[in-house]
This record gives sequence, structure tokens and C-alpha cells, in this order.
Amino acid sequence: MAMTTLEYSKEQKQFMLRALAIAKKACGMTSPNPMVGAVLVKAGKIIAEDYHKRAGEPHAEALVINYIGKKAKGADLYVTLEPCCHTNKRTPPCTKAIIEAGIKRVFVAMVDPNPSVSGCGLKELEAAGIEVHLGLLSEEARHLNEFYIKYITTGRPFVIIKTAMTIDGKIADPEGNSKWITSQRARREVHKLRGLVDAVITARGTVLADNPQLTARIKGLRNPMRVIIDPWLDVPLDYRVFNKDAPTIVIFAGRELSSIEKQQKIKDLSSMGIGLMDLQSSPFALDEILQRLGGLGISSVMIEAGSSLNGRAFLERVVDKAVFFIAPKLICGKSSLPVTGGNGYIPLENALEIKNLRIRRLGPDIMISGYLRP
Amino acid sequence: MAMTTLEYSKEQKQFMLRALAIAKKACGMTSPNPMVGAVLVKAGKIIAEDYHKRAGEPHAEALVINYIGKKAKGADLYVTLEPCCHTNKRTPPCTKAIIEAGIKRVFVAMVDPNPSVSGCGLKELEAAGIEVHLGLLSEEARHLNEFYIKYITTGRPFVIIKTAMTIDGKIADPEGNSKWITSQRARREVHKLRGLVDAVITARGTVLADNPQLTARIKGLRNPMRVIIDPWLDVPLDYRVFNKDAPTIVIFAGRELSSIEKQQKIKDLSSMGIGLMDLQSSPFALDEILQRLGGLGISSVMIEAGSSLNGRAFLERVVDKAVFFIAPKLICGKSSLPVTGGNGYIPLENALEIKNLRIRRLGPDIMISGYLRP
Repeated sequence: MAMTTLEYSKEQKQFMLRALAIAKKACGMTSPNPMVGAVLVKAGKIIAEDYHKRAGEPHAEALVINYIGKKAKGADLYVTLEPCCHTNKRTPPCTKAIIEAGIKRVFVAMVDPNPSVSGCGLKELEAAGIEVHLGLLSEEARHLNEFYIKYITTGRPFVIIKTAMTIDGKIADPEGNSKWITSQRARREVHKLRGLVDAVITARGTVLADNPQLTARIKGLRNPMRVIIDPWLDVPLDYRVFNKDAPTIVIFAGRELSSIEKQQKIKDLSSMGIGLMDLQSSPFALDEILQRLGGLGISSVMIEAGSSLNGRAFLERVVDKAVFFIAPKLICGKSSLPVTGGNGYIPLENALEIKNLRIRRLGPDIMISGYLRP
Repeated sequence: MAMTTLEYSKEQKQFMLRALAIAKKACGMTSPNPMVGAVLVKAGKIIAEDYHKRAGEPHAEALVINYIGKKAKGADLYVTLEPCCHTNKRTPPCTKAIIEAGIKRVFVAMVDPNPSVSGCGLKELEAAGIEVHLGLLSEEARHLNEFYIKYITTGRPFVIIKTAMTIDGKIADPEGNSKWITSQRARREVHKLRGLVDAVITARGTVLADNPQLTARIKGLRNPMRVIIDPWLDVPLDYRVFNKDAPTIVIFAGRELSSIEKQQKIKDLSSMGIGLMDLQSSPFALDEILQRLGGLGISSVMIEAGSSLNGRAFLERVVDKAVFFIAPKLICGKSSLPVTGGNGYIPLENALEIKNLRIRRLGPDIMISGYLRP
């Protein structure tokens, strides 16, 4: 059994913090793999450090051991996630490299939550006589890999919902005007969030109203896949979500679209390279959508939609994290579009609670984010 | 002309800060008068300080001079508001006392905004050869007396609107449940606010739905007057707003209430000591209501109402300050009551902006407040 040490030295925490910090450099790049950082320490000094860059490339532990070769003997390894033992992947198991390098102690922030391998790496290291310490900065490590943890344990992506609203909870006035509720500074933050997730989900109403691009227009960030819920294929082919800037999938209700016209549209979309996902359930059943996106290797999504889909996402309890961009503005009116609409609701006594609130000022606006699951 | 000094010493700022701090001790007690603090300084030391307690009692300047008698000669006076010169009131003018005491210099944070006397006190002091400095910490002084400034310059009370809502902008679920959206900690803050204003305004819908008391149930705070907008006198006599805990006024539409039954209700309310205000305009014309409350000497009000009146208050541009108590909860649904409802709305491009935002955590909740006027 790996030791669950309760007291770590300040120095040990610093080394793990460093491993976490360098792991984060690959933020948004490793999906569906986790972010992992590793630091090798000898005589109180870091002798090598690196992180996992992207799926298919070497693991952090393998990298640092490889850098310094024989000097690794007797060193301490700090790694943000349990080293891998399995061979069901493109890279050799890290446990083997660690054992062969003669590492003395291994500090692991958290076990690999992947149910098929969880704990196996720790066991292999211990069986080889290495001193293993588990749990140093585990909370920080779990936060770092919240996408991966959700995905690997449920098969469904981590779900962020993002909204931009006035302080009186409106996302558009009754004429449909929503540009722009929040400031450029807040919108830039949205682009950053897009750069972190594998996919952005929206629905026909939002696309038809705003003709958005849904891309991460910040240098160095990759664009997420666009997932458009468009049951009756109403979005015209020349809309910006169908441009070449990012892969796009349209979720539609095939059984309701038998007309020649719609069949032609399916062909047109396919020929443009747009993915098509024919949903068996109601086309807005988010759980099925998330399950199927998980099947495609999508480990995180951000819902950027209108009143109705926002309301459904909360009601269906699929949201992991909510991010509200709030402009200190008022437009009032019962006909203005509420941030959460739809026919369903949650009685006040059962209201969903948002935990671990974080509040930030973003230029004139306020960003409030938090978690809907423990 | 009083000198508008640009550079004050750190010491001088400290003395005025002290005057502001002691003025604030009477917060919620001086209406319709302003809060005023005064500090007498000699040889770099405070030799007397006091503040105006309530309307009809002595002014701060008179108090401090009276305390030390002849020792005031040659001293500096720091006062948060221009000393009074007029005699149209129950107390003698402070200018006379200051001149007779032989004060050398007077530091005044701001002129009295009362248009009928503004600047007259400063002139009298200067005519007597006293060195007068105007503007030290004027912004802080204006903030301290924001109620008074609004009231004395417009004849209408300063208007705060307070709402308690979920983060998705709802004040009740579709079944009308609103108890409790926010925490006890936030509700306590509401009681504090009630203790600061002269009156609380609400409407029949809120009273019928919640049967609130609208009192400041915190030791040491006085209860505000309750102003109930109840056009057709629908609120039953045994509702808590009609108890003896605070003076209450009902605003009704007399011309629409000719039935014997309603006439009897008017008599019943009167015999219970409830004030009645028969509105000439539409019973929800907030501007007329505020004008008439101003006529009664009400210098500040807090609107604590439902969707519809909230929406109207913003649309009619009568709100000076908005205070949002936001619970990190979601109830969703287009049938849930929005924080601002009503038929009217403001197109996004003209959205009302809330300035000078202040954000506070109150237990699990968030308080966001700010100003709607420059």
C-alpha cells in the first residue's frame, strides 16, 4: 500500500507545485489524456522537469528520466498523477522506466481515476521496493484534471455552461438583441475557455439568431469542435459555423427528415466535411448527446446556447461547471430572454446549488463561476 | 471666495476623516437633515469632536465650540458640510458661533447642496476674516450624505431598490415560492438597510404573496415607514404590514373605489392609524409617489417589491442605487418570476448601466450594489 502521508515538508510541496505548474502548460492540448507534470529531485535540487504535451507523445515521467539517464538513480520523482502501468496505449509503461532508473521515492498527487488501471502503477512501484507517497496536493491535482476525471470515470465529457447576461438575468431584449451584453474583455475570456474545451455545443436558435463562429480567436489556442443541435437542419449552409475554421458536427433528428430537400441537405453537409449525428432519442436529450460525444473522445464541452437549452442543461443535471459573465446593465421586461428558460423548472426548495464560487472582475463585468457537482 | 486647495497634508486628511467617521455614527437617524461631524484642532491635536444627532438637536459645529468655550480661539475647525447661515430652523446659525469663538481656519468637505442656502455659510465666514478651505475629502462627504443631497436638490427621496434573486435572475419559482432564496446572513443585511432608510415601498402583490413585516429587526435600528401600493385596497386588515411596529401608509386609487365596502375599508385603515394617500395619477406612477413622500419629509426609500414594480422602477428611471442579493442557486424556467418583469423593457443598446459597483460575499451569497446615476 502506498503511504498516505499527512505531513509533507514545505520543500516537498514546492516540488509538487512545480510539477503541477508545468503540467498546466499543456492546458487544452492533451485531451483525452490528462495533463501530467513530473519533477526529478536529487539532493534538494530539481535535476529534470517536463510535462506531457499531447496524446500519443511521451509521458512526463518517461521524459524526465530519459533526459538525465543514469543520474536518476537514487532521485525522488514528483508526479501529478499515478504513473501508468498498462500497455494498452502507444507509449511504454512509466512504471518500468521508473523502476529501471533506480528512483528511490515517488511522490504522487493522485491515483489515476481510470477505473481499469487505478492503483496498478502504485502497486508495481511498491512491489519493486520503491517508497511511494500518495496524496501530496491531491486537491490541486484533481482540479487540474477535472475534465479527464469526469471523462475517464463516466465516459461523458466534463460539461461547462457559459452565459453572458445582464445583472437582471437577461440574455437578449425582446427584439432578440444580444450584441453585446458583455464587454470585449469578458468576450476574450470566452475565447480562452473555448480554447480549453474539446467541443462547444449550441442549438439552432442561437446559430440562426447570432450566426456565431464559436472559435477561439486568440493566438496559440486551438478551436474546439462545434456541435450544432439542429433537429430539422434549419441552419443555412453559408452560416459561419460551417466554415473551415473548426471541425463541426450537426446533431439532427433523422427519422423526422424524410423529404428530398432534407436528404439533399444531409448530402451537402457531408460533402462540406460536416459530421452528422442522427440522434435516436429526442434531439435535445443532452445525456445521449454527451454520451455519443464521449464516444468520439471528446472529454470536455462548453454549452453556449440560449434560454431554452440552458434551462434544459440544468434541469437534466448534466452541467459540471457554470460560468456566468454578468454585465452591470439592466434591460428589464418579462419578454426579454431569461438566461434560463424553457417549460421546466426546479422548485425553490430543490434549487440547484453552485459550489466553490469564484468571483472575478473582468473590465466592467463580473465573472461568477462554480461547480454543480461536489 | 473659499479656497479650493488641491493639496492637503496627511494630518489634515486625518482630521477630516475623523469628522466623517463620527458623522456616520448618526447614520439613519438625522433625516431629513444631513449627517455632519465636526472636529476642533489646536496645535495639531483634536480638542473637541462631535456630530449632529438628529433633526431639531444642535449642529456638530455648535456642539464642539460649546464644549470648550474660550479655548476655541485660534483653533482649526474641520466640518463635513458647510456650516449653516440661515435662521429658518430651530437652531441658531453655526456661522455666528464660529465667528464669535474666534476660529482661525475652517476646513469644509463640501458646500451645503440645499439650493436656498448653498455657499452662504462660507461667505459669512470669509467676510469675518476666517480662512476657509473647501473640498477636503469632498467625494467621501458626498457619499456620506447621498440621501440628503438627492432630497434637498430634488424634493424627492433617494431611491434604493433591493432584490433577492437566484443567479439565474429569478425571485420566485412558478408556484410563487420565494422563501428563502438568500441566506439568513443576506437577509440580516436587508434589515440593516431598512434601518437606514426613511421608508420601504412595496406593492400589493408582494404583500399578498409573502405577508412581510418590512421592519428592521436588529437591535438599535429604527423601523422605516411602510408604504404599500395597494390601488384597490386588497390587502386584508390583519396582514402584518398593518401592525403597530412601524408607521404605514397605503397608496390607493380613490376614484376607482366608490363601493360601500371599499369606503368602509378606508375608514377601518384610518381608525387603525394607517395613513392613506389617494393618488391622482395611475396608482403605480412612481414619480408622483416619490414626490409626495418627499413632501412628507421622507428623504430615502427602499423599494422591496416583485418583478413588475422592479421593472417599472428601472424603466421610470427613479432608482438611484440598486442592491442585488444573489444566491448561487438555479431554479430555471420561463415561468419562474424574473427579478425585473412587466411589459416594458429597455432595448439592449440603451441598457441602464450600474456604476461604482461593489461586490461582497455574504455567507453563501453575493451582494452586488451600484449606482444608476452619475
